[in-house]
Amino acid sequence: MKIVLVGATGTIGQHVKEELAKRHKVISASIRKGEVKVDITSKDSIKAMFEAVGRFDALVVAAGGAHVGPLAEMREEDFYKGIKSKMMGQINLVLIGQHYIKDQGSFTLTSGILSEDPIRYGVNLTVVNSAINGFAIAAANELLSRGIRINVVSPALLKESVPVMGELFPGHSTVANESVVRAYVKSVEGVRTGEIIKVY
Amino acid sequence: MKIVLVGATGTIGQHVKEELAKRHKVISASIRKGEVKVDITSKDSIKAMFEAVGRFDALVVAAGGAHVGPLAEMREEDFYKGIKSKMMGQINLVLIGQHYIKDQGSFTLTSGILSEDPIRYGVNLTVVNSAINGFAIAAANELLSRGIRINVVSPALLKESVPVMGELFPGHSTVANESVVRAYVKSVEGVRTGEIIKVY
Repeated sequence: MKIVLVGATGTIGQHVKEELAKRHKVISASIRKGEVKVDITSKDSIKAMFEAVGRFDALVVAAGGAHVGPLAEMREEDFYKGIKSKMMGQINLVLIGQHYIKDQGSFTLTSGILSEDPIRYGVNLTVVNSAINGFAIAAANELLSRGIRINVVSPALLKESVPVMGELFPGHSTVANESVVRAYVKSVEGVRTGEIIKVY
Repeated sequence: MKIVLVGATGTIGQHVKEELAKRHKVISASIRKGEVKVDITSKDSIKAMFEAVGRFDALVVAAGGAHVGPLAEMREEDFYKGIKSKMMGQINLVLIGQHYIKDQGSFTLTSGILSEDPIRYGVNLTVVNSAINGFAIAAANELLSRGIRINVVSPALLKESVPVMGELFPGHSTVANESVVRAYVKSVEGVRTGEIIKVY
């Protein structure tokens, strides 16, 4: 398969790439490094990426950020950080990517446990992750006619991310990279669609 | 209680107003009619509404639209219809309203069954409804310190809406106005917070 991996240099992306590259041709895309550069907050940049890449079998997205901060101080502009990046970044990759992906292809997006298990200051992330989960279950039905699948991987806190953001997740269980990677493999190589693959 | 009802002239809003007005002072807000005018897609308009209304005990929102159309033709601009209206409209009402609501007050937002049970051409609605559900469960935790509650009413297709949009919901069960109104009453007069009150 020819797989486009957006966020290939991130914590999750690196491990997903290592695994998928064993069996597939993986094209790495990211904002600064990677074979192809893409800024997912810009639909023009997304379009340019797909034009450069050409037709493909699978798109995997492990990219996108959001605002972290107290609700009491949150403004509309803060909220749009997550909307423009992790939410519409991923959604635009599908809205535009559907015109480049082959029939019987697949989309795999990334949400996260915060969609249903919020942390302090994580309102924007919970909203964005919930939105992405909703997008996958709804879009799956309309992609069926071309045999295209779409799933979301929703991971808990990665063991590897504890030094960076563990303090924000008091009492949360962590998951191993291998478990998270398996979820992406299941989405890309498996048969299901419209699934929120929870790794927790 | 002094209750601000946004969307007071809509299908749901009218019935909610009738019931709440039996026991409370309800201030009707809507885009064209109502005691106070508000365009929920504009944060300036929202701020002006709260300045006009002053401090209040409860905000109920039964307003907001989204794009309906096939995924295959959907563009970023279409998606932003729902984001700016039903999603950020309601979220901005809370982000701004938290500075006007009294301690121990409550927010009640509206999502819908499409958050988990999508219909054809309803991708934007599923996403927006999911986002609103996520917002309530996350924001609830941060509003606790002031004793402020937040819930979402997630109704199925209203019996009354069948003539207008029933064709979009093949096989969906309908719910009576009274059941939907009870959910808003529960949120405003009850004790729970962070609840997605499903009326289906």
